[in-house]
This record gives sequence, structure tokens and C-alpha cells, in this order.
Amino acid sequence: MRTGREMKAYRRRVHYYETDGMGITHHANVVRWLEEARIDWLAQLGWPYDRLTAMGLDAPVLALKGRYKESTTFPDEVAITVRLSRLKGLRFWLRYDVVKTESGHLAFTGETAHCFVDAEGRPVRLDRAAPDFYALLKRLSEAPKGSASDR
Amino acid sequence: MRTGREMKAYRRRVHYYETDGMGITHHANVVRWLEEARIDWLAQLGWPYDRLTAMGLDAPVLALKGRYKESTTFPDEVAITVRLSRLKGLRFWLRYDVVKTESGHLAFTGETAHCFVDAEGRPVRLDRAAPDFYALLKRLSEAPKGSASDR
Amino acid sequence: MRTGREMKAYRRRVHYYETDGMGITHHANVVRWLEEARIDWLAQLGWPYDRLTAMGLDAPVLALKGRYKESTTFPDEVAITVRLSRLKGLRFWLRYDVVKTESGHLAFTGETAHCFVDAEGRPVRLDRAAPDFYALLKRLSEAPKGSASDR
Amino acid sequence: MRTGREMKAYRRRVHYYETDGMGITHHANVVRWLEEARIDWLAQLGWPYDRLTAMGLDAPVLALKGRYKESTTFPDEVAITVRLSRLKGLRFWLRYDVVKTESGHLAFTGETAHCFVDAEGRPVRLDRAAPDFYALLKRLSEAPKGSASDR
Repeated sequence: MRTGREMKAYRRRVHYYETDGMGITHHANVVRWLEEARIDWLAQLGWPYDRLTAMGLDAPVLALKGRYKESTTFPDEVAITVRLSRLKGLRFWLRYDVVKTESGHLAFTGETAHCFVDAEGRPVRLDRAAPDFYALLKRLSEAPKGSASDR
Repeated sequence: MRTGREMKAYRRRVHYYETDGMGITHHANVVRWLEEARIDWLAQLGWPYDRLTAMGLDAPVLALKGRYKESTTFPDEVAITVRLSRLKGLRFWLRYDVVKTESGHLAFTGETAHCFVDAEGRPVRLDRAAPDFYALLKRLSEAPKGSASDR
Repeated sequence: MRTGREMKAYRRRVHYYETDGMGITHHANVVRWLEEARIDWLAQLGWPYDRLTAMGLDAPVLALKGRYKESTTFPDEVAITVRLSRLKGLRFWLRYDVVKTESGHLAFTGETAHCFVDAEGRPVRLDRAAPDFYALLKRLSEAPKGSASDR
Repeated sequence: MRTGREMKAYRRRVHYYETDGMGITHHANVVRWLEEARIDWLAQLGWPYDRLTAMGLDAPVLALKGRYKESTTFPDEVAITVRLSRLKGLRFWLRYDVVKTESGHLAFTGETAHCFVDAEGRPVRLDRAAPDFYALLKRLSEAPKGSASDR
């Protein structure tokens, strides 16, 4: 089981179909990238998304915020770091930095908030439904800031 | 219950986010429009998609073909006509014309093939599972060509 | 020229292809709806997006935030209201409420921040580049809160 | 410069947001994957898409066809092989096989037709605009069938 310390950034290229008429990545696509990075982060933690769904758990997005700092376009490569920024009661927050690997420039920085729900969409107490996973998240949430992810 | 004769074309505008770096609608989005038009066509026939799914039926796309005749872009309006071109055994084919309403030019013409499946994805004989709907499709498939849709 | 007072909410249905494996609208698609609503709002104001681009102006998204209050799914209809919440220097903020028309429930509430840029992506002072439009936005930003949009 | 003989299949996983309410990859997303695979194929040939666009060339999709043989879903991995199936005058055809890497099952097989256009969208004779690239495509189109791509 990994702590956040050794987590690898999620890398992917901008696809051509993700650009829009302005010639840059359409901003809604970045929200999709966050999901890709989140799923990769869960897999790195040993809790791939399908393991969670097999337990009847899901973690829908409750809130979203972010700032677009610099545009990206096809065929840029981006590296996305994910960090658990907060775990409180039934909710947790993830922070993301989307960095253009060639320039090292920050393209986007943002946050998503989640809760855990069961297969019927009802809120679930993770500490009861998956105590191991909860303990891992707890540990990550207490890690010194800035060490939880590397680029 | 409607026959194809009075069917109305499905109209919608190109969304900005559907354009790509070339400044035109990305070709994969047209495939999505066909689905919108197909769902509208089913609703006009009195068989909205949720009525089918409530009966445990679905009609996945088995095959797809089409020709891109002229590009579209934001904020063009397109009108999409749908016509049942063939019903044979467990399969049916729909034909689509995507027309730019301002110029009247044909943007895309194509076809999708479908079968009916149950909730587990197993092929279903529509004449048994939904004889009324099958009878309607049968009638449409026998309609004189060219009269089944109007622009 | 319209003030915000008579603005109509932007209505659209959830498309089937906008749902995800959870059976609900994928959250990233809501970000696209905001763009649709924003473009409709500009058109209602007499400043359709293509009028702005014809003047060499664009208004990229600088920041985004929102809360998902209740899920939507195909074939729900949503009504999206847009309101200019703030205009300050070179930036403006728009607020959105996405309401499910059948239940009247709020599905999403959020905000986007924008600036104006020229065709090369450089920031533009709107009060110089398009004084009429700036004056309109100014007036909207000073409208009493809550009256700028109706459902 | 590579011939088709040593080309590697393009591999990628299904993203969660690419699934739909049926719990499987939405069929329109496969069309996007073909573009990803096509762009990877061009890069492997030494003609990355941005090299073509830098020369003022583009290769829009004129036609599309394909059969969905088996569904895919998150987090399946697929391997997509691309083969130049035909080069004739100003047009060329690419064939794609999308294979699920775990089972080895074919998920999709299809074809896209393209021409070359200049930056204004006018048809271009590739043998004049980029004789080297044309010669390469010519050679690929004459390669014995079945050897042009491997999985």
C-alpha cells in the first residue's frame, strides 16, 4: 500500500478532438482529465475504481472548482498530480495541478469534492464500509502538505 | 400512432464545444447527433426511448456508415431526417440526412444498423417482445421510399 | 437591447450520450451546458458569440466553480439561468442555476470567470474595444440581485 | 522512415466518462479512438500530424464505416491497428481493428476515407504538396495485405 509520497503524476497527451474552434483544449475537457487522474491515483493507492464499485461504492463529484492558468492544445503532454487535500466526516477533497510537461507551466489548478455512496446513490460512511481504505485516506490527509505528490 | 409520413426533421444547432481546432464540427460529434435524431424519431413514433428501456429493451448500434459531404460549424442549424430503411429478422437499419438549414446543403448522409436486446444485452425478437412496435416498424419499412421523411 | 430582467432561461434535454456508467449525466457535461446557456444569454442580449468573434473578441473561461446538488439523467429537461454576477476591470463573472424543470429541483449552481481577449489571445479592455457591450454589461452588473434572471 | 511492417498497435484504456447509461463505451467515442490511432500511426510513420499542419496540410474524414462486434467498457484496454487499405488519386482509406487486449476479442472494425486539403480546406494533390509523404503512402498501399500492421 502506497502513501502519497511516491505517487506518480498522471501523464497524457491532448487529443486533437479535445481542441475547439479557438484552437485550444476546450475547458470542459480538463474536467474529464481530472477524472482520469483521479482514477489513476486510486489505482496507484491500490484501490482501483472497479475495486470500489465491486464493493458497491462510488464517489460522485459534489463540487468542482479550478482556474485555467494557461491554455493547452494538441499535441501537448500534461502531467496531472493529485493530492488528498481534506477528509472530513463523509466528504473528501482532491487537489489537482495540470502541468504542461514541455514548458513546466501550470495549465490548471483545481479541486473536486466527493462523498461515498452505495449502489443506490445513498451516502455511505467510508470508515464502516471500507475501514482499510478510510485509514489510508486518513493517513494521506494528514501527510505534510506539498509532499503528497511530486511532479 | 404516426406513420413516417408526417415525421418532422430533428433540428438543433452546432454547439461551440463541438467544433475542433480546424474550426469545424468534429466528425465524431455528428455520430452523436444521429443518436439525438433517432431518439426524437422514436418519440415521434410514440415509442420514446424510456418506454423501450422500461420494457427492458434496448437497441444498440451494430454498424455505422456515413459520408461527410460538407462541414458544419458553430452556430449552424442542422435538420436531421430519419427513415427506417430496412427491417429484416432481428435487425433494422436507419438512414439519416443531416442538412444545413440555412443553405439547404447536405452535410452528412449515413446509416446505422441496430438490433434489439434485453437488459442483459441478449438479442430479443421484437415481434414477440413488443409486437405493436414491431408492426409499426414493419409498416414504416414498407412505406414508399422518399415519403418516409420530409425536410 | 435587453436588460437582464426579461431574460429567458435556456432549456435543453439531457442527451443519452451525456450519461455515464452510473446512469446519470457525467459531471463534465454540465460544464458544456453552461457554455450553451452563456451563448444563449449573449444572443438574448443582442451580442451573439459570432458578433463578438467577428469583432476579433473572445471571452475564454478563466475559472470555474460549482456544486452538483442533484443528479440529472436522460431524458430530463433542464432550464439554465445566467446572471452577470460581477464586472470588475477586465474580468466578469457569470452565475448559473441548472434546474430540473419537472421537479423544480436545483441540479447545479455555479460560476464562471472570464476576460476578453483579441484574436491572438491577448487581454483586451472591453470598455475600449466594444464600449456599447461594456455599457450593457455594466448595467447588468448593477441590476438588483435576484432580478437578473427568471425561471 | 518506417514501412507499415513494424507498426505498433495504439493502446489506450477506456475512460470512465466514455461509458454511457448502458454501462458500456458509447459508440461515438470509438470514432474518436480511431482518430487517436490515426494520429499515432502518422507519428510512427515519421509524419506527425503537426508536421502536416505546419506544411498547411490537413486530412479531413470524408467517410466512415464500421461494425461494433463486441462492447467495451471502463477500464478495458484496447489495441488499435491501422492499415492503409487504399490510395487512389486524391483519396486514401485507412482500416482499423479495435481489439480488447485482455480477451483478444475484436470490438470494432472499420474504415475512414480521407483526402488532403490546404489551410483553406481546398483539395490538394499530395504527390505535389508532399511527394515524400505520398511516396511513403504509395509504398504502404502496395504492401501485401495483412502484413501492414501487427498486434
